[in-house]
Amino acid sequence: MITHGPVASLIGMAHNTVEKTSVTLLGLGAMGSALARTWLAAGHPLTVWNRTPARAAALAAEGASVADSAAEAVAANTLVIVCLRDDASVGETLSGTDLAGRDVVNLTTGTPAQARVRAAWARDRGARYLDGGIMAVPPMIGAPGAGGHVFYSGSRELLERHQDTLGVPAGTTYVGEDAGFAALYDVALLSAMYGMFAGTAHAFALIRKEGIDPATLAPLLADWLVAMAPAVHQTADQLRTGDYTRGVVSRLAMQVAGTPTFLRTAEEQGVSAELLSPYFELMRRRLAEGGGDESLTGLIDLLAR
Amino acid sequence: MITHGPVASLIGMAHNTVEKTSVTLLGLGAMGSALARTWLAAGHPLTVWNRTPARAAALAAEGASVADSAAEAVAANTLVIVCLRDDASVGETLSGTDLAGRDVVNLTTGTPAQARVRAAWARDRGARYLDGGIMAVPPMIGAPGAGGHVFYSGSRELLERHQDTLGVPAGTTYVGEDAGFAALYDVALLSAMYGMFAGTAHAFALIRKEGIDPATLAPLLADWLVAMAPAVHQTADQLRTGDYTRGVVSRLAMQVAGTPTFLRTAEEQGVSAELLSPYFELMRRRLAEGGGDESLTGLIDLLAR
Ligand SMILES: NC(=O)c1ccc[n+]([C@@H]2O[C@H](COP(=O)([O-])OP(=O)(O)OC[C@H]3O[C@@H](n4cnc5c(N)ncnc54)[C@H](OP(=O)(O)O)[C@@H]3O)[C@@H](O)[C@H]2O)c1
Ligand SMILES: NC(=O)c1ccc[n+]([C@@H]2O[C@H](COP(=O)([O-])OP(=O)(O)OC[C@H]3O[C@@H](n4cnc5c(N)ncnc54)[C@H](OP(=O)(O)O)[C@@H]3O)[C@@H](O)[C@H]2O)c1
Repeated sequence: MITHGPVASLIGMAHNTVEKTSVTLLGLGAMGSALARTWLAAGHPLTVWNRTPARAAALAAEGASVADSAAEAVAANTLVIVCLRDDASVGETLSGTDLAGRDVVNLTTGTPAQARVRAAWARDRGARYLDGGIMAVPPMIGAPGAGGHVFYSGSRELLERHQDTLGVPAGTTYVGEDAGFAALYDVALLSAMYGMFAGTAHAFALIRKEGIDPATLAPLLADWLVAMAPAVHQTADQLRTGDYTRGVVSRLAMQVAGTPTFLRTAEEQGVSAELLSPYFELMRRRLAEGGGDESLTGLIDLLAR
Repeated sequence: MITHGPVASLIGMAHNTVEKTSVTLLGLGAMGSALARTWLAAGHPLTVWNRTPARAAALAAEGASVADSAAEAVAANTLVIVCLRDDASVGETLSGTDLAGRDVVNLTTGTPAQARVRAAWARDRGARYLDGGIMAVPPMIGAPGAGGHVFYSGSRELLERHQDTLGVPAGTTYVGEDAGFAALYDVALLSAMYGMFAGTAHAFALIRKEGIDPATLAPLLADWLVAMAPAVHQTADQLRTGDYTRGVVSRLAMQVAGTPTFLRTAEEQGVSAELLSPYFELMRRRLAEGGGDESLTGLIDLLAR
């Protein structure tokens, strides 16, 4: 049975005239709850379900209808959004539901292969399928301009049909018919971010024993990283043309020659170089292969031939 | 003997009225030559020396006076700028010169300890000393707005006296009386940049076997990194207060739980995780120590206790 909260019915009525798409949402963790609130705030009738009922109760007070089971929630609306821990929990949750004729939008983080298998699985059950990778943390949800967005891949038609609804919590970026691509772009960007975080961790560690205020370093670091981030455009250009010497300013040979200064500085400052060394090691390997005149793009060939 | 090029004398005359500071520059590699051209263009009388004379000849045609030896170049002007390969070449080059009364500005990359020793060495020889770390590649020199600047540390008085001259090639950022700090900030920012580059290399490797155009990924990557770079402000705030749970959005425990998706995606895409694993390994170690409720700041404690 679906329990309509008192506010839900009011909001439902107030917005009947503009006919906002009704949404079913499975999963009310930190992310699911953030998503839910943006749809409620935008006047979309919302049916929710969560394995642990307590989390749904909080949303009922804000206007959501609460389903007793995932099957009931799926039955309530055509558009079914899923935001659970991982792909295994999606399989568990959806397997007891009737997906025929449903528009399934899966915002659960997973690997590209998991998304492809899940897409085929959902289509076998009569559903249309769109996969999403959320590039945001909950506080960025519903905050346009905070830089968050969601990668979508799979059925483009499904994204177009629900653009007005899916665009409520965050911007939408479609990256291809291959259902695995949203996960691929998601993981690619987050992997790059962890690399940047590893670099900034090393930087903060370097100043530690000097008693320099970390807040002095922070803006210098942020500005420098922002200035250097566009280097990816040259990398892309070199990867496309296959010419890794194209427009090179700092030759790999010169950069390898500079690495002892970095390692010696780490040692002087009492900092482990464990986050820096693997990249330098890759630089040395590429140089040994004869890449001295290249930029750093050749290192990518060593990661994935 | 110092050979005055024909243009040099003309420029020297034309600018005599505004009295631009005369500059001696030792080292005309890629960076030294770029610096030299900005001072010539700005009308500073410039005396240059380079170990290999051919490089000086090119600058003579553009107006520089060429000295036959480093000693002669140092004798020519009070302000002596040094931009050589490394600290060892600085020692070799300056040891045969009379530094008494000279304002030595060393723009050669090195470690903080090397800069401190070099500063004491120069002061012992009667010179004032300012160390510099150039945060730019040669094409950014003399291009205001390109994001380049030079960190300076050591004698603040010396920077103030020569601000008009030192500000010609790039912006100046003073970071402290400790002569080693320019090198420290320099290495810290470049280390962080290499971390970011390691991350972007992994990201480009991930899409390789899909035949996705790297130029499609590049702007998404750049925008995401620019959006995430300000995370360093929270890190700095947590380091200052010592409270690594302050304002946490993504708990370490949750992030560690997400790492298998990254490693499995790398495996699916045939990409070595060698650049990513060391950071994840550090995350796991911090979690094992009980840092599950923290952000990622605690990892810095594992790099430098
Ligand atoms: N939070 C972020 O910053 C963020 C950012 C981008 C993407 N995401 C992704 O969004 C998804 C949800 O994240 P979250 O932050 O909301 O996680 P969370 O707070 O840990 O919530 C996990 C959700 O999954 C449910 N769940 C777990 N195992 C289940 C199972 N076997 N059957 C049914 N339900 C199950 C939980 O239900 P219970 O309440 O019953 O435990 C809860 O609703 C994840 O894939 C995550 O990677 C999160
Ligand atoms: N290029 C950049 O992107 C960049 C960026 C930031 C900082 N820097 C720093 O700027 C400094 C110079 O870099 P660069 O790019 O100009 O390097 P470079 O093109 O390799 O030039 C090296 C310079 O050092 C001289 N040199 C080397 N060993 C010497 C010795 N034993 N005695 C006297 N002179 C010697 C060379 O003279 P010869 O001509 O006789 O070989 C040349 O003038 C380095 O410390 C570098 O780290 C460079």
